[in-house]
Amino acid sequence: MQYNYEGWRGFESGTWVKEINVRSFIKHNFTPYDGDDSFLAGPTKDTLDLWDQVLELTKKEREAGGVLDMDTKVISTITSHGPGYLNKDKEKIVGFQTDKPLKRALMPFGGIRMAEKACADNGYTIDPEIKEFFEKYRKTHNAGVFDVYTPEMRACRSSHIITGLPDAYGRGRIIGDYRRVALYGVDRLIEDKMEQKETTRSTMYAEIIRDREELSEQIRALGELKEMAASYGYDISKPATDTKEAIQWLYFGYLAAVKEQNGAAMSLGRTSTFIDIYAERDLREGRYTEEELQELVDHFIMKLRLVKFARTPEYNALFSGDPEWVTESIGGMAIDGRHMVTKMSYRYLHTLQNLGAAPEPNLTVLWSIGLPENFKRFCAKISIETSSVQYENDDLMRFHHGDDYAIACCVSSMVVGKEMQFFGARANLAKCLLYAINGGIDEVSGKQVGPEYRPITSEYLDYDEVMHKYDEMMQWLAGVYVNMLNIIHYMHDKYCYEKIQMALHDKNVTRWFATGIAGLSVVADSLSAIKYAKVKTVRNEKGIVVDYEVEGDFPKYGNDDDRVDSIAYDIVHRFMGHIRKNHTYRESIPTTSILTITSNVVYGKNTGSTPDGRKKGEAFAPGANPMHRRDTHGAVASLASVAKLPFRDAQDGISNTFSIIPGALGKDDAVFVGDLSVDLDCCANGACGTPTLFEGLDDHEN
Amino acid sequence: MQYNYEGWRGFESGTWVKEINVRSFIKHNFTPYDGDDSFLAGPTKDTLDLWDQVLELTKKEREAGGVLDMDTKVISTITSHGPGYLNKDKEKIVGFQTDKPLKRALMPFGGIRMAEKACADNGYTIDPEIKEFFEKYRKTHNAGVFDVYTPEMRACRSSHIITGLPDAYGRGRIIGDYRRVALYGVDRLIEDKMEQKETTRSTMYAEIIRDREELSEQIRALGELKEMAASYGYDISKPATDTKEAIQWLYFGYLAAVKEQNGAAMSLGRTSTFIDIYAERDLREGRYTEEELQELVDHFIMKLRLVKFARTPEYNALFSGDPEWVTESIGGMAIDGRHMVTKMSYRYLHTLQNLGAAPEPNLTVLWSIGLPENFKRFCAKISIETSSVQYENDDLMRFHHGDDYAIACCVSSMVVGKEMQFFGARANLAKCLLYAINGGIDEVSGKQVGPEYRPITSEYLDYDEVMHKYDEMMQWLAGVYVNMLNIIHYMHDKYCYEKIQMALHDKNVTRWFATGIAGLSVVADSLSAIKYAKVKTVRNEKGIVVDYEVEGDFPKYGNDDDRVDSIAYDIVHRFMGHIRKNHTYRESIPTTSILTITSNVVYGKNTGSTPDGRKKGEAFAPGANPMHRRDTHGAVASLASVAKLPFRDAQDGISNTFSIIPGALGKDDAVFVGDLSVDLDCCANGACGTPTLFEGLDDHEN
Repeated sequence: MQYNYEGWRGFESGTWVKEINVRSFIKHNFTPYDGDDSFLAGPTKDTLDLWDQVLELTKKEREAGGVLDMDTKVISTITSHGPGYLNKDKEKIVGFQTDKPLKRALMPFGGIRMAEKACADNGYTIDPEIKEFFEKYRKTHNAGVFDVYTPEMRACRSSHIITGLPDAYGRGRIIGDYRRVALYGVDRLIEDKMEQKETTRSTMYAEIIRDREELSEQIRALGELKEMAASYGYDISKPATDTKEAIQWLYFGYLAAVKEQNGAAMSLGRTSTFIDIYAERDLREGRYTEEELQELVDHFIMKLRLVKFARTPEYNALFSGDPEWVTESIGGMAIDGRHMVTKMSYRYLHTLQNLGAAPEPNLTVLWSIGLPENFKRFCAKISIETSSVQYENDDLMRFHHGDDYAIACCVSSMVVGKEMQFFGARANLAKCLLYAINGGIDEVSGKQVGPEYRPITSEYLDYDEVMHKYDEMMQWLAGVYVNMLNIIHYMHDKYCYEKIQMALHDKNVTRWFATGIAGLSVVADSLSAIKYAKVKTVRNEKGIVVDYEVEGDFPKYGNDDDRVDSIAYDIVHRFMGHIRKNHTYRESIPTTSILTITSNVVYGKNTGSTPDGRKKGEAFAPGANPMHRRDTHGAVASLASVAKLPFRDAQDGISNTFSIIPGALGKDDAVFVGDLSVDLDCCANGACGTPTLFEGLDDHEN
Repeated sequence: MQYNYEGWRGFESGTWVKEINVRSFIKHNFTPYDGDDSFLAGPTKDTLDLWDQVLELTKKEREAGGVLDMDTKVISTITSHGPGYLNKDKEKIVGFQTDKPLKRALMPFGGIRMAEKACADNGYTIDPEIKEFFEKYRKTHNAGVFDVYTPEMRACRSSHIITGLPDAYGRGRIIGDYRRVALYGVDRLIEDKMEQKETTRSTMYAEIIRDREELSEQIRALGELKEMAASYGYDISKPATDTKEAIQWLYFGYLAAVKEQNGAAMSLGRTSTFIDIYAERDLREGRYTEEELQELVDHFIMKLRLVKFARTPEYNALFSGDPEWVTESIGGMAIDGRHMVTKMSYRYLHTLQNLGAAPEPNLTVLWSIGLPENFKRFCAKISIETSSVQYENDDLMRFHHGDDYAIACCVSSMVVGKEMQFFGARANLAKCLLYAINGGIDEVSGKQVGPEYRPITSEYLDYDEVMHKYDEMMQWLAGVYVNMLNIIHYMHDKYCYEKIQMALHDKNVTRWFATGIAGLSVVADSLSAIKYAKVKTVRNEKGIVVDYEVEGDFPKYGNDDDRVDSIAYDIVHRFMGHIRKNHTYRESIPTTSILTITSNVVYGKNTGSTPDGRKKGEAFAPGANPMHRRDTHGAVASLASVAKLPFRDAQDGISNTFSIIPGALGKDDAVFVGDLSVDLDCCANGACGTPTLFEGLDDHEN
């Protein structure tokens, strides 16, 4: 085959020429940048005009109660809408989810009732014919899941011991390799998928039939992607020929994904260093000036900020806002030792200055000790100015995923185009502890939700007895939880398959079966209280323990005290062990995460008093954080406790929400950067999910 | 549980009271009838009036070109239509597929293009919104199948080496146990299904998820069945209380099935002896007279005659008419030695006298030597009068299936409510022989369809060489064929699941994976010619053998000559062996059948000249029949050849279309019956599918 594309002029050849392999292209062609930010250009007049328009629209949206406009009849697909513009003459990068900005699309495949409610709660009425069609003739993911749930599963869901399950909307956490669209053009990708289809195993087992059907769906989706781009006047069948096209092609890929799926996190990937290769060539060729390049990036980022879904108020309440997690991973190190910071890394972050601070896209720096000093300083500066940068530990994740992974949502790392995640919400381990004490009876509702194990009948809690019962109850919970997720992912594949996202993946994808833990620090402190202090049970008239009195002090998680930190470690290790005992759908690999960042409030609200002295309804700490005000030995001790958690048992990520007032560090900004990198390193987790380095940014749920 | 239903008064108890078990009910309660037909009543005034109305409508339908009216917007489901009547005041048994008689329903789940074409070819236009919905948002069985077919499979389909595949419409050949609706009422059936759902295995493997979802669909369908009956003014939640209700409840069950599915054969089951139990009680109680009972049966049968689907002209051409195969199995023997002929068996057959001859419902007598003489005589009389009775060999099938099986379509036997079939169309073994000779090149199109095996290059064919190559080619064909069927049945379950029919089955159903053979006698004679005569190849300019010259005579299948009959036996045995080598979907049990009854004409049309002297395009013999005029040694010799075929390798049935002019037997009608039973017995096949004992009845395809 001959691939002498105009778009590939001047690029160094490599494996990427013969096979779909973006990493090889980057490795052979990227230019690390060690300089400072002095080269950056400010916003153009067009950029400022467009951004004013966006601000005006956003204001109107807020005034309208959160939603400006909604589709109630047109079902969103890749090709469902004609082109939409802010101002066609000024926009360098084009494309909206619907036919105009901030008009939210109708996405009923995850669940018609959720789509209907999202309309109704925002004052819109879904077209009755659409409703009827989806209720009678076109089953949804949600309907499928509820057809299969057992009564026990429903009870676990109602009692909030398992919660946040993606059983009524898109699961998300799948990153299409949108760069492929730019580098190869769609025709080559279709050709590749056809070859994949030709080479499936030839005996028609059910899973081979499924694979072949999915590949056909993917091929069709790629055709639709071309069609959609054509409606904007672009032929994306061939590789992009310059930076503008590269960004545009890539964005069309992403746009197709957000037209098709309303996943809980629709992340972008790791695109800046890829795009930089085009920009460097364009600069060499004199095709674009720095100002023009920055304008392209500004317009691209502006588009990403306008990605919106129709959600219900409950969803927004759980997630504290209206988040999309358009996460872009920047920087990191190559496995050959070079850092991967480019001028484009700067340009992406610079949009926070040109357009102002914003939570989306979720710009995430893959932090490494090896990043160039200039870039570290620039990150610090942008963080101080905008509080809008997330940092994650590349030195740890690179070991597992190599140098072409990206973050989905806030902490879930996956190799772009080669790995995906079955998103798994989380199990409330604090409530599980209460179930262990009460023999499976829910402390809030008084209903028997868990198995009817023997409850604890003594007045004072005995550590060994509680631990024994807790371990049994965790095993039960892990079983129900994994089985629920198996149902969810089976049905999502059946009724709401992510065809364009998977079209931008390899044929053989590694699937992570994600689970999650909520309430870890509550559990650790509770068990510590039982072990090191005396905990007296307070029972209601039915004998159910509904409160606890703690007599004496006890070591608390977050103070670098091994007596309790080892309990936290042990719980994560045990729970993950129980998770691993179960069958997981589609040969996926079980993982867990500890990363509630806002939903910890809701989990706490639904959980009774705990043996650590926390009262019924009080919020949990977020993620793996120590409970608020209990980490009394300073920041380093607090981080050290978190750092002890076993990453191998929580590979989907451990988050620690950590706020520092600059003055508290007793140092000026410049020195702070160095300290921070040490902290991040000592954190030793897959990711230190800290979207709020200082203040003011919307927190993210996962 | 207490089941003291009014509907069960006076019935003898048995296992059937505690579990869903219609066979147990019949066994404990049926009354064999040894008398003659003198008790039968003629049609009532209402019956005659209604039938006149039907004839008038049928005439109008013919005048309208075959279809009187069609839905183009309402998608057919169990509850999609309000009640429909011929004449509400006169009809004792009510219910139509749509809201009026002979209006054909819109059934797009099998394939929207087929539904659209069925409309268009009859002068109707499908609603464009419906078309769009099904093309864009609601995938169909047909779309799923074609997403998965390989190029090789498509080539096999286009070249007609595998043909008649149910990949664009309902597969059919599934008999719901409609009697359960009458005996238990729907509430009890729902209760049973709920219990089945509660007791699935608890680890959520994909197949368990599938099972649980299907059970939920079944439960929902039973609810819809009740709703549909309620629209006709009947509450069918409790057991039927008399004959009228029993027939009506049972018919509602069947009606729900034909509202939901347009399967290639929607058979009724084995209902007459079941209904007779109610009739006997009603006669004892003085609730109905014989005339009233016959009227109920006449009205029921009238309804069955009016079951129609929207088909394309191609479908009707293949199947020689507009057939539904509403097959009802009558008579047979109980395994305790009693015959199962009841007065109701007479009443069902008597409808052919009261209403006149008709191909539907396909009244099939399960023939046994043990049937009472009076009934044998009555059958013969009805056959002579109406040519509308099918006979099948109960003595053989009872051994395999017990005494509560029924025939689906024309010969497929299955235990009612416990077994179902994945319908499998058939492989053209005559064309396969030509592929063996030409190295996989299709003799008609000249395209390489089969594998590129070495062709035969000699001028004269050598038996051993041909057999060796033929065996290899059959192995290839069996593989492609079974894989195609795996795809079809996976997709049918996914996009067009028979929820009400399966709701009237047990939880654990035995699934027969049916395949079929076409062209058997052509192959047998061809191989015989190669072996015993000399066959010279005639090649076209490309060297492809396109014709054969036979020099000398050879033994022909159909003359009780073991030299060729053993070849026929061997081919069936070998092919079934190759079929068995393959994985079959859903742990189904592979079977085959030899039963083309009309499509043999079409198969012949698409097959080149064969070494037996048959010329290109000439029809094959139907089913397992000897080639026309080649069975020169008389009827018994012809039947003896067929009887040698191995039933264990063709358990789905072997059909022999056998026409006898009464005079040819040299005996009068009365004696004829005895002879016929001998013939049928000596046939020794699962079924001697002979809808035309004499002449004039529409042939059936399967």
